[in-house]
Amino acid sequence: MTYGLLEGLRIIESSAFIAAPLAGLTLAEFGADVIRVDMIGGGIDYGRVPLAPSRRSLYWTGLNKGKRSIAIDLRRPEGRELVQALATAPDEDGGVLLTNIATSWLAHDLLASRRRDMITCLIQGNGDGSSAVDYTVNCATGYPAMTGGGSVNAPVNHVLPAWDVACAYQAAFSVLAAAGARRRTGDGAELRLALSDVAFSVLAHLGATAEAEVLGQERPSVGNHIYGAFGLDFGTADGKRIMVAAISFGQWKALVAACGMERDVERIERAHGLDLRNEVDRYEAREEIAAIVRAWCERRPLAEIDAVFERFGVCAGQYRTVRELVESDPRVSVKNPVFERIDTPGVGKHLAAGTPLRISGVARTPVRPAPLLGQDTDEILANVLRLDSPAIGKLHDEGIVAGADKDPTVTHRN
Amino acid sequence: MTYGLLEGLRIIESSAFIAAPLAGLTLAEFGADVIRVDMIGGGIDYGRVPLAPSRRSLYWTGLNKGKRSIAIDLRRPEGRELVQALATAPDEDGGVLLTNIATSWLAHDLLASRRRDMITCLIQGNGDGSSAVDYTVNCATGYPAMTGGGSVNAPVNHVLPAWDVACAYQAAFSVLAAAGARRRTGDGAELRLALSDVAFSVLAHLGATAEAEVLGQERPSVGNHIYGAFGLDFGTADGKRIMVAAISFGQWKALVAACGMERDVERIERAHGLDLRNEVDRYEAREEIAAIVRAWCERRPLAEIDAVFERFGVCAGQYRTVRELVESDPRVSVKNPVFERIDTPGVGKHLAAGTPLRISGVARTPVRPAPLLGQDTDEILANVLRLDSPAIGKLHDEGIVAGADKDPTVTHRN
Repeated sequence: MTYGLLEGLRIIESSAFIAAPLAGLTLAEFGADVIRVDMIGGGIDYGRVPLAPSRRSLYWTGLNKGKRSIAIDLRRPEGRELVQALATAPDEDGGVLLTNIATSWLAHDLLASRRRDMITCLIQGNGDGSSAVDYTVNCATGYPAMTGGGSVNAPVNHVLPAWDVACAYQAAFSVLAAAGARRRTGDGAELRLALSDVAFSVLAHLGATAEAEVLGQERPSVGNHIYGAFGLDFGTADGKRIMVAAISFGQWKALVAACGMERDVERIERAHGLDLRNEVDRYEAREEIAAIVRAWCERRPLAEIDAVFERFGVCAGQYRTVRELVESDPRVSVKNPVFERIDTPGVGKHLAAGTPLRISGVARTPVRPAPLLGQDTDEILANVLRLDSPAIGKLHDEGIVAGADKDPTVTHRN
Repeated sequence: MTYGLLEGLRIIESSAFIAAPLAGLTLAEFGADVIRVDMIGGGIDYGRVPLAPSRRSLYWTGLNKGKRSIAIDLRRPEGRELVQALATAPDEDGGVLLTNIATSWLAHDLLASRRRDMITCLIQGNGDGSSAVDYTVNCATGYPAMTGGGSVNAPVNHVLPAWDVACAYQAAFSVLAAAGARRRTGDGAELRLALSDVAFSVLAHLGATAEAEVLGQERPSVGNHIYGAFGLDFGTADGKRIMVAAISFGQWKALVAACGMERDVERIERAHGLDLRNEVDRYEAREEIAAIVRAWCERRPLAEIDAVFERFGVCAGQYRTVRELVESDPRVSVKNPVFERIDTPGVGKHLAAGTPLRISGVARTPVRPAPLLGQDTDEILANVLRLDSPAIGKLHDEGIVAGADKDPTVTHRN
């Protein structure tokens, strides 16, 4: 077994933003040959912040690591024909298109008329084809109305594009399942995955829609408390902040012992007829428990708390900014095999993550930086489409394809 | 091509909480035979809120749809032997264990000594085996310090267990990749996936760690604004709230036209030397743009705004509570093929989601409710372990296994 679990699978990715590119990245991390197709000069996500001083996008280079890049004039019929030819190339490894761009010239039926066992995976906003993005889906999920003590009229949006991430990994999974089935049956498939379906299905799987429907109850907005158990953030004597979780009985026992709050627990149980070994009762008594833990934490510096919590096995973590994380957490450093330092053209040397999957006893495949836009144009035309040098030269001369810019800076307007 | 893309794959799932059960659910949605193994009486997640009036958990039943359930006394050697035998059953379809419970008697090497091509997937908190949950990982990501206008000392936790969800889908993907590779090579694999690695790798892929490291810059906390483009929530004249996004140039053009703010745009561009066709410039001018859109929205009821936005193709969505979502959004109703009404024992009839994946031209597999705990004990012992009736009867008599409770209520303490 190696990390190249998907070696031999080729994906043509015509994409932008997060969900589709992250799906492609996930497939590339496992050894698939992912070819990202972009408009000459870059697609609409090519200049997204954050930008390096060179104006290269740290967002784009983060999401397109380990892919090959071909730059094509997608407005011209000859350019579109090239993308269709790439997607339907007749070799066994090909015939998979991953896209979030619904366009008639990449429609499944059209491609399937050129390659019978074609697999296309289209990521959409809504299942009916209407437009939606993470933010306009999230507002409908109810989460912003219960985050940070918010309400439906004072909602708090998550900053993490969580639905895009979930959709990306579902898409990678779906493509892989379809490719595996095709290997056995010879059949292709037209796959569609809507961001809103991903979000609402998660809501349903977590019991949130049934809670509303069966119990007729709105989940309360409880700030940083963990719903249905005990967990909250606390300040320390030296001005740090930690999150403490006591979801399982084991975690609760550890917290009670660490804070020496056995008597307080008995007092709360007696006063309210609760049994705090039960997580639902802990949730009910959350404010009283929190007051005790808060006082305990506020009297101690973080180092002391960490030592006590480690001794007793308390589940807790420190709040950090991203800079603090990168500067001080060994989990985001080359001490963690998931992370490596790579050199991305136009960005320089920086930490980058490979797949989070650890396969015991197997050497990891090195993380490859994102390509320059169009860096692999000629190679792809030659080894996927089997074009010869004169044919490739002609495509360049006519401005239908482009190679890598000498200067990887962004002047593009989306 | 059918929805049963994974038919013939059997997964033994020994799990609790979200990440591992949601991974198993994802595999089950595609036709895998997922057998959830639980302690007699239920594991530590069996009583998690929300609870139906019967005290059956809507959370547990949501995450275990379409699986088979076997109840075993996992404290006794004979019970542990049964789980090992299930995981290593010699037929071609078997030999896959999915778990988030690191325990010596389910260690990969032990199972691989019984079945050479064993695949185990262990979901961990941290890669070094130390404990972490979604909440204690999230605090380290920096997101709570930039959510809802928060800071590292006044953090705002997300309520969605986003890292658990991402980890679940990564785990399903990893198991599938390993199973596919095993089919070709005959090799098993020990897979480990840490929640914190999933979270921090997403941070890195989105460019957040490079932003901190390469630019030395903390991403600002900007409330509900979309970072790096234009997007914000606005109130309407009739007391509703909407999220408006103008990330792409097309979305921006639509918003400008819908709100008739061409002159305001020119004024802002001239005053600050900006070009609002560029998303980075829109982000810089976000407060001034927001003031115009806010005034426009506050003068109009939602119905009018919806009509105008639809005419111009503006990307927007309404904030809802979960109840409002379930009661009024057709995307969470049987009008959407992703959703069905199912009847879960102990819960009753309710909306449930199947896979969000749509495969064109293929009938969906009906969603099957979660099993009663131990509902399939005898069937699994008979058809996976090939035990005969006397042997199964003996296991019951000795209290090593249990069938379904007659009364599916929860009296369990975690």
